[in-house]
Amino acid sequence: MSRENNQLAQYVARVEKLEDEKDDLKLSIADLYVEMKAAGYDAKIVRKIIALRRRTPEQRQEEQALMATYMDALGMDGLPLWQAAGGKDGKFDD
Amino acid sequence: MSRENNQLAQYVARVEKLEDEKDDLKLSIADLYVEMKAAGYDAKIVRKIIALRRRTPEQRQEEQALMATYMDALGMDGLPLWQAAGGKDGKFDD
Repeated sequence: MSRENNQLAQYVARVEKLEDEKDDLKLSIADLYVEMKAAGYDAKIVRKIIALRRRTPEQRQEEQALMATYMDALGMDGLPLWQAAGGKDGKFDD
Repeated sequence: MSRENNQLAQYVARVEKLEDEKDDLKLSIADLYVEMKAAGYDAKIVRKIIALRRRTPEQRQEEQALMATYMDALGMDGLPLWQAAGGKDGKFDD
């Protein structure tokens, strides 16, 4: 194998190793959701919560505002779930 | 924190840890492609090769056949790249 081809093969091997590790993590995450389901949690809701936690309060607020605008434009009733569920700061009033 | 809430918090923490590790891997892979580019390789082609290597010969053949059928149906000239590039076994004839 030429030096050039060897370099390419090494790059490919390195990417494939990292991709394999990524696949392993994906499987671990999937397993965890299966476990959660078995423990009685709704995996879809937990996924949404985790996605929400990855955003800053500013990003969340911006998304909420846009979502409300688009829902209004589409004539959809009500507000996005996490806004409709509580007061203006996301907490229940009582 | 109740025992129930504590369990949920632990699940969320475990998923978030794995998601962070996945993000790290994605960054490492992106870095590697930047490095390859700097070394003169076309990152898009290397990505395609790596995707191709993840398939079995049977899967590849099946995809090639479907791709040829669809391209023919769309009136597109020629065969998918990796078929058009060589003889029937993918090697150049000369």
